[in-house]
Amino acid sequence: RMWIRRCQSRCLSSMRIARRPDLAAVSDEHIRSLSRLCPNNSRDEVFLAVANIDWLGKYKGHSPLILYPSSTHEVAAALRYCSGKRLGVVVQGGNTSLVGGATPVHDEIVLDMRRMNNIIEIDQEQQVLICDAGCILQQLDQKLETVGLTMPLDLGAKGSCQIGGNVATNAGGIRLVRYGSLHANVIGLEWVMANGTVFNNITTLRKDNTGFDLKQLMIGSEGSLGIITKVALLVPRKPTTINLSYLALESFDKVIEALHCARFHLGEILSAIEFQDRQSLEFVLANHPGSQDPMDKSYPFYMIVEASGFRQEHDADRMSRFLEDALDRQIIADGTLAQDSTQIAGLWALRESVAESVGKSGSVFKYDLSLPVKDMYTMVEAMRTRLAPVISPDLICGYGHVGDSNLHLNIVSPEFSDKVQDLTEPFVYDLTRKMGGSISAEHGLGLMKAPYISYSKSEAQIRLMQQVKDLFDPNGILNPYKVLPVAPKPEPAQSIIYQGKP
Amino acid sequence: RMWIRRCQSRCLSSMRIARRPDLAAVSDEHIRSLSRLCPNNSRDEVFLAVANIDWLGKYKGHSPLILYPSSTHEVAAALRYCSGKRLGVVVQGGNTSLVGGATPVHDEIVLDMRRMNNIIEIDQEQQVLICDAGCILQQLDQKLETVGLTMPLDLGAKGSCQIGGNVATNAGGIRLVRYGSLHANVIGLEWVMANGTVFNNITTLRKDNTGFDLKQLMIGSEGSLGIITKVALLVPRKPTTINLSYLALESFDKVIEALHCARFHLGEILSAIEFQDRQSLEFVLANHPGSQDPMDKSYPFYMIVEASGFRQEHDADRMSRFLEDALDRQIIADGTLAQDSTQIAGLWALRESVAESVGKSGSVFKYDLSLPVKDMYTMVEAMRTRLAPVISPDLICGYGHVGDSNLHLNIVSPEFSDKVQDLTEPFVYDLTRKMGGSISAEHGLGLMKAPYISYSKSEAQIRLMQQVKDLFDPNGILNPYKVLPVAPKPEPAQSIIYQGKP
Repeated sequence: RMWIRRCQSRCLSSMRIARRPDLAAVSDEHIRSLSRLCPNNSRDEVFLAVANIDWLGKYKGHSPLILYPSSTHEVAAALRYCSGKRLGVVVQGGNTSLVGGATPVHDEIVLDMRRMNNIIEIDQEQQVLICDAGCILQQLDQKLETVGLTMPLDLGAKGSCQIGGNVATNAGGIRLVRYGSLHANVIGLEWVMANGTVFNNITTLRKDNTGFDLKQLMIGSEGSLGIITKVALLVPRKPTTINLSYLALESFDKVIEALHCARFHLGEILSAIEFQDRQSLEFVLANHPGSQDPMDKSYPFYMIVEASGFRQEHDADRMSRFLEDALDRQIIADGTLAQDSTQIAGLWALRESVAESVGKSGSVFKYDLSLPVKDMYTMVEAMRTRLAPVISPDLICGYGHVGDSNLHLNIVSPEFSDKVQDLTEPFVYDLTRKMGGSISAEHGLGLMKAPYISYSKSEAQIRLMQQVKDLFDPNGILNPYKVLPVAPKPEPAQSIIYQGKP
Repeated sequence: RMWIRRCQSRCLSSMRIARRPDLAAVSDEHIRSLSRLCPNNSRDEVFLAVANIDWLGKYKGHSPLILYPSSTHEVAAALRYCSGKRLGVVVQGGNTSLVGGATPVHDEIVLDMRRMNNIIEIDQEQQVLICDAGCILQQLDQKLETVGLTMPLDLGAKGSCQIGGNVATNAGGIRLVRYGSLHANVIGLEWVMANGTVFNNITTLRKDNTGFDLKQLMIGSEGSLGIITKVALLVPRKPTTINLSYLALESFDKVIEALHCARFHLGEILSAIEFQDRQSLEFVLANHPGSQDPMDKSYPFYMIVEASGFRQEHDADRMSRFLEDALDRQIIADGTLAQDSTQIAGLWALRESVAESVGKSGSVFKYDLSLPVKDMYTMVEAMRTRLAPVISPDLICGYGHVGDSNLHLNIVSPEFSDKVQDLTEPFVYDLTRKMGGSISAEHGLGLMKAPYISYSKSEAQIRLMQQVKDLFDPNGILNPYKVLPVAPKPEPAQSIIYQGKP
């Protein structure tokens, strides 16, 4: 596997992070006990190699054991044991984290959710899906499609990411502009606390104001407050019409103008609005089989504007008026309107395969930033200037969800070198803070950004987060070293016995 | 004032709830100190009378002091003082709680937010509103309208409820079906912790995945985890077209059929779908000036189906097809289509003035329930049977947000009698649990439902909620006796001095 190979050549690994002395080293006795509690498990070297490296090949851990629980009960039993023995645990879904959020740092036990992949209920009347956390996003969407429904989120990793991981990381993606965030769409959750207590809030009810909405804390907690085992999600009716245009623009100012123009003309049927720069398109043209430049000549910026609805004539007319207006006002330089589903898929591929295509060109430093929309591309240019001595400007690209002012900044390097890393961080976070942005829009903090949380959150907030963490996971066994800056816990005294209370 | 008079005749008051011994009685010295910290305040008997009784005239407290802070700084200073002295605090917005959530129980200090009512920013490009918590919902909507935007929530109390209270109670209302819940629309919050620490997450950024989303916990915490002082909210473009039909139906089964038919035909332009029974309409016809029966004869059920968009012809056509289909299939018995904005307002008034009209007929026991849609009206009928010995069936009505399966059950009694109360509770909660519903859909728990939380949440969840409460508000000064069942804290030892830590 290419990315295992790549990591062998160079990897930002656990050696940078000191082992927490309060966590126990995994012993053979631990492995025997866990194997009894969770009969599906593996110590196979190949499986462990995959589980111990992140999707980018940037981080590498040393877990000796993967558990594949097949029920909430098994997850609970494993966590209860690990809590009592103070063993670190990392939950892994599709293993598509871009911030090292699902990779062991030292010898944490890997909880791989792939066997928990049942669709439990599709309530067509209430438009609610209930399923296991290990279901793959794209498979859920395909299943829903058969009954005229669709998932309210969609992202590049849909073929492998799991809904539990989506919820745990508060994934955004291309449909957020239409359906809103998971904080509104997740109406019920089942999760297991660090001590093994199961919280079941699975429901098909859209509203429930009975006490603090604790499940909201789980959304975006990145596996560090509990393990999500089941999800109840609002699933909208699948639009029957798609009108998609791919536009070329001469500057980022024009991108912003096009955003406003599209919002005005398309309103409630606007279902995605994405941008990418020429550099990101170049990576796709070079590395993605079958891709071709959709325009006759090269432009510095491109956009996808997609409208989805239920009446073709009406939607097509609104899309036409948007395009006419944008052309008349010289906002767009050129554009193409997809004529059928093949063309729609082809144009989407130009945007959605950026991440994969960039990855084929080297080791990628990826930054996922929220920025005021006017500053989104200024950030890319600033990084090109900053890194000019070591990285060619063509190897730095920007793309993302312009409707959510969410920039994906990618820097392609021959390897994960300290030099590039040190030139980039914390500079990029500092600039983000100065621009009033957030250092993580939709990818979370994981291992990569945990040390930098203070660039986006105040000291008082970080302290309260730590207190919430201590309340939910007193022994700190869940996804250690991630999300929050590491503050080693004192080594437990011999007399401390696990009490079994949350 | 009518409802003060009513309360004097009969009031479910603090005598039922024992005073928490760990909270200090408010002394003259406390009042002098708080008056210095918050120069706008009142001990006026008339103002206190209003502040000490809830909107329904059901609960009555004995607060001796109202503070009207004019800045976050003043809120923080007051809370810091109250935390140190262990004085209970109740925050009051529009005082429109239907569960006694904003009424003092004993002598809690009232924090009235009306002076904090500035609109800080309307970012038209990002479609974000930033404002003080004390802004009144309707005034915000009117202000936004001048720039073509609108609030994502709308409810009957809009003329007096405040956005801070809306957020603190996770208000639902008639637009939730279109724009989703506040958990998605609130993108930033400023709040003050019980100890006076200010948390500022005000932003115009739509996405921020840097650590646990603590503000989500504030949404729906009912003033018991902190005091919300500023809100940043996504505000959508105001639709330019409204097509509204008011329908008559022969049974609740037909209401459900009409719901699905409307969802099918109107899809993304469906902006409200409400139902009400004949009994609720009768209250309006009898008590709401200018109202008249919209149909030639009486029907057991009525619905409002509203579509909002940006193209009149398209929207009107879809509404027509919905009506044609519903008539053809004999789902609806009769219907009227509003021809202009006056008719739209008139038809909405039939639904929106139910709460007020019912209130003019007696003392109202109000229940706000989430139920599987098939059971929504079964609940109303079950209560009519149950209460037949003491309440005429005509005085029990059901209405609400059928698109969210949210029933408002109203029982009109000559007074708030223990007999009606004891026949109703916990019976109604027990039946809700049996039906798989939630005992509070959108009104929260407040004082009224705090003892019944276990009907909707497990023991483990309630325990964790209490731990979260203890973490956020260690002295338990915020909205005491509300939300969670009262578990008296031990009286503080003399030696305990407030440490100023969260």
